[in-house]
Order: sequence, then C-alpha cells, then structure tokens
Amino acid sequence: MTHDELQTILDDIAVEMAAEVNRGTVADYIPPLACVSPNQFGITIVDSHGHSMSAGDTDVSFSIQSISKVFSLTMALRSVGETLWDRVGREPSGSPFNSIVQLESEQGIPRNPFINSGAIVISDILLANQTSDDMISDYVKFMHILTGDESLKIDQEVADSEKATGYRNFALGNYMRAFKNINHPVDVTLETYFNFCALSMNCQQLAKAGCYLMSGGQLSSDTSNPVLSEERTRRILALMMTCGHYDGSGEFAYRVGLPGKSGVSGGILAIVPGVASIAVWSPGLNARGNSHLGTMALERLVKRTGWSVFSASDEISG
Amino acid sequence: MTHDELQTILDDIAVEMAAEVNRGTVADYIPPLACVSPNQFGITIVDSHGHSMSAGDTDVSFSIQSISKVFSLTMALRSVGETLWDRVGREPSGSPFNSIVQLESEQGIPRNPFINSGAIVISDILLANQTSDDMISDYVKFMHILTGDESLKIDQEVADSEKATGYRNFALGNYMRAFKNINHPVDVTLETYFNFCALSMNCQQLAKAGCYLMSGGQLSSDTSNPVLSEERTRRILALMMTCGHYDGSGEFAYRVGLPGKSGVSGGILAIVPGVASIAVWSPGLNARGNSHLGTMALERLVKRTGWSVFSASDEISG
Amino acid sequence: MTHDELQTILDDIAVEMAAEVNRGTVADYIPPLACVSPNQFGITIVDSHGHSMSAGDTDVSFSIQSISKVFSLTMALRSVGETLWDRVGREPSGSPFNSIVQLESEQGIPRNPFINSGAIVISDILLANQTSDDMISDYVKFMHILTGDESLKIDQEVADSEKATGYRNFALGNYMRAFKNINHPVDVTLETYFNFCALSMNCQQLAKAGCYLMSGGQLSSDTSNPVLSEERTRRILALMMTCGHYDGSGEFAYRVGLPGKSGVSGGILAIVPGVASIAVWSPGLNARGNSHLGTMALERLVKRTGWSVFSASDEISG
Amino acid sequence: MTHDELQTILDDIAVEMAAEVNRGTVADYIPPLACVSPNQFGITIVDSHGHSMSAGDTDVSFSIQSISKVFSLTMALRSVGETLWDRVGREPSGSPFNSIVQLESEQGIPRNPFINSGAIVISDILLANQTSDDMISDYVKFMHILTGDESLKIDQEVADSEKATGYRNFALGNYMRAFKNINHPVDVTLETYFNFCALSMNCQQLAKAGCYLMSGGQLSSDTSNPVLSEERTRRILALMMTCGHYDGSGEFAYRVGLPGKSGVSGGILAIVPGVASIAVWSPGLNARGNSHLGTMALERLVKRTGWSVFSASDEISG
Repeated sequence: MTHDELQTILDDIAVEMAAEVNRGTVADYIPPLACVSPNQFGITIVDSHGHSMSAGDTDVSFSIQSISKVFSLTMALRSVGETLWDRVGREPSGSPFNSIVQLESEQGIPRNPFINSGAIVISDILLANQTSDDMISDYVKFMHILTGDESLKIDQEVADSEKATGYRNFALGNYMRAFKNINHPVDVTLETYFNFCALSMNCQQLAKAGCYLMSGGQLSSDTSNPVLSEERTRRILALMMTCGHYDGSGEFAYRVGLPGKSGVSGGILAIVPGVASIAVWSPGLNARGNSHLGTMALERLVKRTGWSVFSASDEISG
Repeated sequence: MTHDELQTILDDIAVEMAAEVNRGTVADYIPPLACVSPNQFGITIVDSHGHSMSAGDTDVSFSIQSISKVFSLTMALRSVGETLWDRVGREPSGSPFNSIVQLESEQGIPRNPFINSGAIVISDILLANQTSDDMISDYVKFMHILTGDESLKIDQEVADSEKATGYRNFALGNYMRAFKNINHPVDVTLETYFNFCALSMNCQQLAKAGCYLMSGGQLSSDTSNPVLSEERTRRILALMMTCGHYDGSGEFAYRVGLPGKSGVSGGILAIVPGVASIAVWSPGLNARGNSHLGTMALERLVKRTGWSVFSASDEISG
Repeated sequence: MTHDELQTILDDIAVEMAAEVNRGTVADYIPPLACVSPNQFGITIVDSHGHSMSAGDTDVSFSIQSISKVFSLTMALRSVGETLWDRVGREPSGSPFNSIVQLESEQGIPRNPFINSGAIVISDILLANQTSDDMISDYVKFMHILTGDESLKIDQEVADSEKATGYRNFALGNYMRAFKNINHPVDVTLETYFNFCALSMNCQQLAKAGCYLMSGGQLSSDTSNPVLSEERTRRILALMMTCGHYDGSGEFAYRVGLPGKSGVSGGILAIVPGVASIAVWSPGLNARGNSHLGTMALERLVKRTGWSVFSASDEISG
Repeated sequence: MTHDELQTILDDIAVEMAAEVNRGTVADYIPPLACVSPNQFGITIVDSHGHSMSAGDTDVSFSIQSISKVFSLTMALRSVGETLWDRVGREPSGSPFNSIVQLESEQGIPRNPFINSGAIVISDILLANQTSDDMISDYVKFMHILTGDESLKIDQEVADSEKATGYRNFALGNYMRAFKNINHPVDVTLETYFNFCALSMNCQQLAKAGCYLMSGGQLSSDTSNPVLSEERTRRILALMMTCGHYDGSGEFAYRVGLPGKSGVSGGILAIVPGVASIAVWSPGLNARGNSHLGTMALERLVKRTGWSVFSASDEISG
C-alpha cells in the first residue's frame, strides 16, 4: 500500500465520520471534558519509516487520560522491571474502568495496569524514590523524548478538576492503601496519577509517541538505546489487546483486532506491530466508555488495510 | 526458518518438558481424566503449506474438552451467523470457566462462547433444527472434514462421565433456562455439549483441525468453499486471544502472544495467523486450569520462532 | 384486650384491606399461582388459649410455598439436631430468595434455611433414611398433627408445575451438589422440596399450625411431648425475624416487629411469643416478593395491639 | 427475679468469663485499641426502675466505636425524621462492617445505618446545618443527657488514630460522594464520624445511656419529653436485631435473642424491651468482629433470666 493510497483511506474515513449522526456521548464526570464538541474527529498514522499521515482535527489537543497508562506502565517496567507484577495483575477485569468490587475479593491487587486502580498502583510504584513533582516532571520529559516535541505539557485545569472531583479514584486509592498496596499518602499518589492523565496531546503527537510500541521498543534507527526490550514491548501490546478498553476490550479485539488503549477524552492509541502507530480521537463515547467514532474509524481502517494482527495475509507488512 | 530448524526446536522443547519436575495437576473432576499420566507431552505444528512436524506423545488421544468450543462456535457462525451474539457476549469474563455469578447480574447471557455457560448456549443454538443425536453426528462429520480423518470419534466413557457428574454444568444450563436463554430441555442441550467436549483427538489431528483458523478460513487451496469468511476467522482468533484461557487469558496473551484455546484435559490449540496451527498437550494443569507444560512449551516456541502476533519483526512470515 | 376487641380490630383491617387499590403483583413464575385473584385477603389469629379469630377469606386454601421452610426446619431439628448447621448458615443473605451468587463464594453453603437453597439442603437432610415419597408422607402427617386437621394435602398441580418449570431451583440443587452439599439425586431432593412447598392450607389451618412456635414448642397443655424444646423454638423465631422475608427481612422487622415467614403465594405466618399465632394471606406481592396487603395488615394489627416484640409495654402479655 | 438473684447471676458470669481461656482477638486496625488487655470483662444491667447492677471491670472506659451508631441514628431521626431512609437502607447487609461491594451495585446507598457506610451517611445528614465541631459538641451533650454524666468525653487519641489510618472509611466516604450520597467534604464528614466512634464510656455509663431504648423512648418518669417516640424506639430495636452485629447479626439473634449493637472495641449494648438495658465489654473479638466473651456472657444471661424477646414465658416482665 502506497502512502497515497493510505492517505486516501484516511481522508475517506474522516469524511464518513463527519457524516455520522450518532456521535456518542461526551464524558461529563470531569467538568472540563464535558464542554468539548463531539463534532471533532482526527486520525494520524505514523508508519515504520516514520512517515506521518493525518486526516481531520489532528492538531487539536486533548488530555490523553487513560492512554497515559501505557506510558506510565512503560516507565515502571523500565524502573522496577517485572517485580511490579507483585502489586498488579495481568488479567482482563470484566468490569468498568472504575470498579472497586474486584479489589475487595482480591485483597487490593488490581486486575491489570490499564484500569484506574491498576494505574494508581503504577503511579505509586514510580514514586518510590522521588517527589510527585519530580515524577510528573520526569514523565513529561519522557513524553518529550517519545514525541521529539518539547512543547507537550500538562493541562493543569484538567488535573485540578480531577483532584477536586475524582471521588472514585480517591476511593480506589484509599481502599488499596487499606490493603497496603499504596505506599504513599493517597493524595500524593493521586496527584501524580491525575497529572499523568492530564497530559495534553493531539493525534499527531500521540501517534508519534506510540512508535516505540510499533517497532519492538526502538525509538529510532539507533537501536543501542531502546525504550523497552522487544519482549517487554510485545507484552505491553498483549495487555493492550486483552485489557486496553476496560469491559469493552473483547469487543474492540473482535471488531478491530489490534492492541489499543482508549481514554475517556475520546482518544485511542492502536498499534500494528512492525507497521504503524495510529492515534484517533473523537470525544463522544460508547456505552463502555470508549470513543464511538474512534472505534468505528479503526474498524474501517483495518478492513481496508488488512492490518488486524489476526489476518492471515502477507499484506500486513505492506 | 527451515523445516529442519523448526523440528529441532520442537525436539528440544520436548526434551526440556520431559525434564520438568513440576508437571501441574491433572483435573480430577471428570473421573476418566483423573487417571491420565502427567508425564505425557506432545506438540505438533502444521504450517501454511500443510507440512506437519511433531515431537513427543503426539499420537496419544485425549478428549479435547473446551477446545471443542472453537469448533462449535465455528459451526454456529456457519449456521446462524452474527445473530448468535444476541445470546452470548464477547467479553473476557474475569472468572473461572464454570462461574455462575456473572449470569445472575447479566440476566443469563454468558460473557463469551469459550466459558462453559457460553458454549452451552452455543450447543443450544445448534439444536434449533435437529435432535441431539443428529447434531452430534454432524459435529463429528465436520471434524472429519477439518482433519481429513474419518477415524475420529467421541469418547463415550468421558461423555457419560460428565453426564453423571457434571453438576455445575447442569446448574449453568438450568440457570440460563430460567432466563429463557436455553430453549431445549437442559439435559438434551447438555448431552450435546458433553459429546462435543468428549471428542477424542491427538495432537497431530488437532493441529490439522486448526488449519482453517491459520489460513483465513480456507480448508485447502481450493478457496471456493471456505469453512468461514476471512473476517469471521479473524474474529474467532480475537476471541481466542481475549477469552481462550478463562481467567488466565491475560496471562497467556502476555507470555505467549498467540490466540489459543485450552481444555481441562491439557490440550491447547494455538494459531499463528498465516503461518502455523499448533497443538500441544500435557495433562497437568496450572492454577487457572490451563496446561502447565503446554503453556510453557508455547512460550518457548514463540521465543525461539518470533511467532507472537505482537512481534514487530518480519520473520513472522518466515 | 378482650376477644371482642381483637375481633373488631381484625374486622376493621379486613375492611380496610378490601378498600386498598394497590394490591401488589401476583407471582407468575409458578403458572398455577398466576391465576389467583389479588382481591382476596384473610387473617386468622389463634391466641395462647387456643381461641381462634378470623376475618376475610380465611377458608380459601393456597399452597404455603416458603412458609413450609419453617416446618421442614422444625422436622430437621427434631431429626438431626444442631448438626444441620454444618450444612446451612444462620445469617440474613441480603439477596433475593433464589440468588445463586452467594453459593459460589461460600462453597455451596446456603446463608440460611429460609432461602430456597437453604430449604433444599434441609430437604436433602430429611431424606437421609427414607425415600422422597415416605418423607413427603411424613411431612403431611406432621402437619396433620400440628393442625389437628387430617384433610390437609399437597396440591399436586402446583408441585408438578414447579417440577416442570423450577429451573432456578434445579440450578441451585445442582450447584450445591457440585459442592457436595446435596447428597441425593437432585431431582429426588427437589421432588421433596417442591411437595413441601405445595402443601395446601387456609389461614385458619396455618395459624393453628404455628401455635407451637407461639408457645415455646408445646403443642398442647400436655407438656410432656413438645414439638421442639423451648430453646430451639426461640431460635427458629430468631431466624424468622432476621431471615424470614428474604431481602425484605429488615423492612418487615422495622415495620411489623414480629418473627414471620412469607411465601410467594401471598401467605405470612407471624408469631407473637406467648401470645398469638397469626396467619395472613393476600396473593399480591411487593417488590421483595412478600405479600403487600399481608404486611400492611400485620403492621396495622401490631400498631393497634402493641404486639411488637420490641414493645416496652406490659400489654404484650394481654 | 429479685435484684439479689440477678446480682448473683452477673457475679457468676463474671467469674465464668474470667476462667475462659479463649478470649478472642483484640482488634488491631486502630492502633490504640491493639494494646488493650483481653483479660478484661465487665457487665452492667440497668432495669426499668433505674436500678443498676454490675460485675467485673465496669468502670474501665473504652471508645464505644460502632455502638455510637445507635446514638447517631437516634439524633438523626430526631433531626430529620423518616426522610433519612432516602439515603440509607434498612436491610441486613450479609457483609462485613467495612464492605464496599454492596455500594457499587446499589448506587452508593448503604444497606443500613449500622454498617460503616451507613453511619457515615448518618454523620453527613447530621452536618446539614452546622460545623463538624459543633456537631461533635452536640453529640457529647446528648450523651451527657442520656447518661446524666457530664464527664463523658471523646478519646482524642483514638479519633486522631482513625483519621490517620482509617483508609477503608475514607474509601467508603469518597465512593459514596461519587454517588452524591455524601454532601460535605469527605474529611469533614469522617471527622464527625470518627469522633462519634471515639466517645469514651464504661459499662455503667453505657447501660445508662441505653435506658431510653428499654423504655419506649422515655428518658425518665417525666414522659412529656421523650428522646424518641415509642414507635421509633421499636424501630431502632428492630434494626439492632437484624443489623446490629454486621454479618454476625443472625448468629447473635439465634444465640441471644435480643436487639443489640456491638463495637470493635469489644462493647455490646443489648436491650430487653421494658425490662433492662445491658452493657457488656470484653476486648477480644470473634471472627465476625463482635466481642467473643461479651456474646457468650449475654447468651448465658438470657438463658438464666429468660429475657429473649422470643421467649413465650411471662417471666419477661419479671
């Protein structure tokens, strides 16, 4: 598939999405998110050669929310390695993103790092040797490196809003602290977590940030300093496939067939191993809390490119 | 990778597995399974050219148990198409294979077709226009076609044993009938289900039976009469990835990175799309009810071949 | 309070109940129950001197359903004593009468003998040394003794209907059998259970049958042969208070303040220790599955007589 | 029964309890409670004439913990009446005192006011028109009136300790705030709740404080100014019977047969309507979190006095 062919596919999809009447429902539990227009849609693809293609509103920034869980997990694996699995599981939860029920029967160990409770534990792990401010700063720097863009920053209004109204997350944090699976003061750990979620990115930046996941952990052609080993990269992709869309993960795998991670602001990062890093964004959500048009766009993209990891065809290497 | 190289890998793995001291625990809830020796291990690979390679006890037959759920789902998709999703979900359950809890809160709709409740509904769907005996006969014939081996048959002792002691399955069936999600007498539907599970196969036959899943739904080079469409085949693989190992599905995806389906008799069918159909068998199970050595063997195979669907390398088409 | 005063109270209540517009909803899951008219209402009181007072439709028979759980528990305590608590708990379930969820986390041990699962275990205990037919016959004889009325019999249409459609009960029985907490074939245990539930009684007979619970276990002035010891009688009353109305038990205690046991056919047996045995019946149920008008009538009766066990006044001893 | 006879019974029980080897387990989740000696035991009875009888360590103070839930519910009923039931249920929970699971499925409405979540909502209701400090001060004054003892005060070390380590309660508060069933800042509501629990009383004071529950809501022979109406008093007793001992409520009703409320510091307040208010204290707990020796002592007291509310005998008005 040529760049032109792919660009045409993206343009077609953007036109089709613009025409969709049902645009999903914008999340309202974080007040600043509630006023974003559901009419927006953008999609960016970066291929294995670093070539970027976009269609739609790909320069509009949004807080990446739960997509940050992929990056914080990456940082935690770099920092403490596989020992982090002592404190968080690797199984789909079968529950919504903010469910607390599972924690009671499983003694404060979250099912996986991609639901809120799991990502809060990851934040707590990252705080082992530094303050929340330093950790947030390190995270932003890490994202600068992944994107090559030093303009990225936290949307402080969003972070503050979550701090003021994120009662369920405070409940999760306190509950896990009762099981001694949070080691820092709950408000410190959540401060870190909320700032991770509040990083502001657009589709172009996000697709760029996902490139190491496409390329076996490598950031560039200089393979001497990978972000992650090839094995750990594969494992993150496996978690994205089984757990990346909360209790809609099975549905996403069924319809799209790519490892992906969604956020309530309407973004999805999806990876075609060895082939492409894809960022899509549209603020309206479906019943599972995943971008309605974003999922639909990815489904069409995969249909037209044959990019499912479950595809038998050789065209995957494009 | 040459056939010789691959054969060497298989031989090495068989030797390594023979040396493992911890062999897992043989399932004892179905009496005839309890007396199988955990010392056995076999692995067979059939590649995209139909070439078969084996190591270990690959000609010893075992009842395929839950692996049958892949084949019955295939038959149901052929028979009624996507309408079957009205009666069964597509999400990982986060629960053991025989859990009944989820059914209460979700009104008798099983989470997915690969847990017992879901496969019982699939059996019920297949009974729409025929008797249990005819349906079982059709299933055996379908498996004859997939394997090209007309000697395959039901292990009647195993089927009878489940009928006599499968109380949890009777509980699941009756419970779903109360929600009107089972339409036939519970014992008739379960008779069908138990016989599906009791089909006796060895690794060589099982790997052959999985070939249509490797090759986009095609049974042979004559592509005019596929078992399933390419799209439905991908979708079954997605379900195997997210739900194929009960509440150990995330772990399997993390360690192995292939769509797979396990059974309590110790078999696993794993698929490398476009590349290979793999059957592995060792009767001892891990804590999640999946073959302990089978999982370990697949993990090593993937490490040595690079066959994870999450691998960025081009060698996958090897 | 004189007999005349009490009769007037009953007559008033019957008139008030006849005037109620909202009559609750008749249970429809057992087909023969569905066609009973919700316009019926009856109430009978038998006092500690054996004097009986009635108002309304107290000679219309109905299957006593779950009220039978009090009598089968009594028989089981007579038969095996406190050892029965090894197989069933004594705590309110916080769940509907037919919930199966609790059984999964608590290994097949029902919360209490007054939910379906618990009463099925009680039936199984009673089958230890005899056939289902003999046991049912013993139960009917026991009820003849309690009521002094040899005309009582099982409503076979109701028993057969439950056998044909009681899928949830078959699910509960099979599920507990999987945990080895049912020792007989599930259909045999359920045959017994369904027949217990299908005993046909009217309010006059039911109030009479409850007299031993009012009088410390004594059936008559001849105290040499009690039905139960005084201590066990108190304990059954405690269970009726905490568990007698499924997940509406707290509400009943709050509004009525008497130990009671309801059934889905609309009957309630309530006991004023030392003072009165009360049977009330009206087929329409409230949201918790307890008689809507029956509960209301008891609430008014207690208000006008001061008969709550939580009352501080001396009038309780009448 | 004469005062002397009753005193002898209490003395005997105190001697028997002193000889018990198994003394239960002292709660350790609130640090200051962990160092209390389990060798202590005290019991005080105040009868309907105001006569007080004691045996054992009845002048040793302890923080009353969850027993405070009876008093805060009383204050809330006085303040807002039955409307409080819009925000908290009246059913046994079937769960431990600090369970959060039920809140998820029931939208943040606690099952009853005697589990932690319910009492936190009651605290929030009481804060409607005043600061936390004022409310705590009002509560202490209310307890002064009930006991006639102005020396009662909050154990500030205990209150501070709960504030510092009560992570589960912070989880419950935040979780209910997410459902909008907590209206004040969570730390303010919990400050109030923790202070209620930290009130320091001895058995003599506690038995005195319970007298209004024994006497239909009256504090003294001057009946013009009751603490509660007779009806509301009965209703609180009903809640104590069905919900007063967490998931051990059924067991307590079965063994003791009196409305009661326990606390994790080892106290129990039990009421014999019209007859006696009983306070018992021993710090070691049973598996359900209720005083091990306290429960045993009450069981023996009831056996020797016939004071169960389920007793048929007339001696109850003794």
